[in-house]
Amino acid sequence: LAGDLFDPDTDPNPEGYGSAVDEKNIKLVLAYDGTRYHGWQRQVNGLSIQQVVEEKIATMAGGPVRLHASGRTDAGVHALGQVCHFPYRGRLTPAEFRRGLNSMLPEDIFVVEASSVSPEFHSRHSAKAKTYEYRILNTTEPDIFLRHYVWHISRPLDNGAISQCLARITGRRNFSSFQSAGSSVSNPIRTMHRAEIQRGPGGAIRMIFEADGFLRHMVRNIVGTVVEAGAGKIGPEAFSDILDTCDRSAAGVKAPACGLFLVKVTY
Amino acid sequence: LAGDLFDPDTDPNPEGYGSAVDEKNIKLVLAYDGTRYHGWQRQVNGLSIQQVVEEKIATMAGGPVRLHASGRTDAGVHALGQVCHFPYRGRLTPAEFRRGLNSMLPEDIFVVEASSVSPEFHSRHSAKAKTYEYRILNTTEPDIFLRHYVWHISRPLDNGAISQCLARITGRRNFSSFQSAGSSVSNPIRTMHRAEIQRGPGGAIRMIFEADGFLRHMVRNIVGTVVEAGAGKIGPEAFSDILDTCDRSAAGVKAPACGLFLVKVTY
Repeated sequence: LAGDLFDPDTDPNPEGYGSAVDEKNIKLVLAYDGTRYHGWQRQVNGLSIQQVVEEKIATMAGGPVRLHASGRTDAGVHALGQVCHFPYRGRLTPAEFRRGLNSMLPEDIFVVEASSVSPEFHSRHSAKAKTYEYRILNTTEPDIFLRHYVWHISRPLDNGAISQCLARITGRRNFSSFQSAGSSVSNPIRTMHRAEIQRGPGGAIRMIFEADGFLRHMVRNIVGTVVEAGAGKIGPEAFSDILDTCDRSAAGVKAPACGLFLVKVTY
Repeated sequence: LAGDLFDPDTDPNPEGYGSAVDEKNIKLVLAYDGTRYHGWQRQVNGLSIQQVVEEKIATMAGGPVRLHASGRTDAGVHALGQVCHFPYRGRLTPAEFRRGLNSMLPEDIFVVEASSVSPEFHSRHSAKAKTYEYRILNTTEPDIFLRHYVWHISRPLDNGAISQCLARITGRRNFSSFQSAGSSVSNPIRTMHRAEIQRGPGGAIRMIFEADGFLRHMVRNIVGTVVEAGAGKIGPEAFSDILDTCDRSAAGVKAPACGLFLVKVTY
């Protein structure tokens, strides 16, 4: 792998002038299987995706790197299109980072894309919207091969009831009822652009959520509650009441992490 | 869980007469994810599926049990319908075994069916045919979520060439060329009822093999060789030659275990 620009033996431009030494802003789109990790964010107890990726970038870049992501994902949550960025001074191209990282990263993390972006780009601050998908397997028996990637629910779920609930959360709303207890952000108002359910073959259910932002555990709390409607435990009116109370204790259980995928971040 | 019939405190028929004490022959159909295991067969170094299932049956049956399967599967090979059987004297019903085992087994092993079969039934000796499926992901990029369940091949494979090879292995033949080196059975003749390739969306390829029996590593050796034809390295005529030489060293590489599924055993 190419050396650092400040290595005098390999630097064709040791004075540091010219575009080659400008700080570049490298954007990565990552897919990962969250099963083995304690979430995105670096932490003392347990391996995080951020730590693993930062270490491999550091190996390539020749020094420590701080990777910023569009947001955290919790332990067990997966990503098809997490976006992150890091500053870099050096001669490696984004394509070289992509190839090099994919050869070094463990097989449950993959760099889908790498590109050089403007210095103003920030994976979190520049994000306009995020899309999450929640996957449920609604069959009598579990599927052992999907155990880390779906929430298995054997009780039959009624699509229509879930659809009616999801229709009620689109638009600009206070989502406090679906924010995890113990967490609070200054502004719990979010705009949900899309909230829908799709049924595939073999009992596969996908719920797709696109919003300008999500509160902590918001998708999992929404899914846990609409599933109660799908199972006939609450009606769509009760669901509206839960949304309107802005009180987390009113909502249903939090759906397990394994069914959740961060699909896309839109800029 | 119910006790052993020979426990005098619970046995309503301590003399051992009557149908309740007849030895029953219990048949299980198992699905398992072979990723974590050193194959089906019990061994000293490493956890086997046989050991895990035998131990849970023993817990329910109140004593050690020997489980016979339709055949071994290698480390990393999966099953959708492995069949096994064990002798049992006791009052637990097959449905109780199924429910109890599924509550105790790790989440990568699942009892699909349990039934009481005639004393003559033997999961290996009574088998008439077996069906295996081999899964390939033929896309430029790997899919991290399928890493344990497919062989990822980025080079484009030609369906037609693979189909032509597969057409040549149906019927009654000597499959020595596809038997792993170092192993030999007295009779390498098998009848292949079905050998075909199916393409699904997103680069998914399935090859389905049904035969009256399979030699050691036979499916993986066939797949490794037809993939060479699919990649244009050998032609269908060369494939026929490999089959006809009855010499393992002529064939291609052995396909990785992770793409292989034992789908069904027919009796």
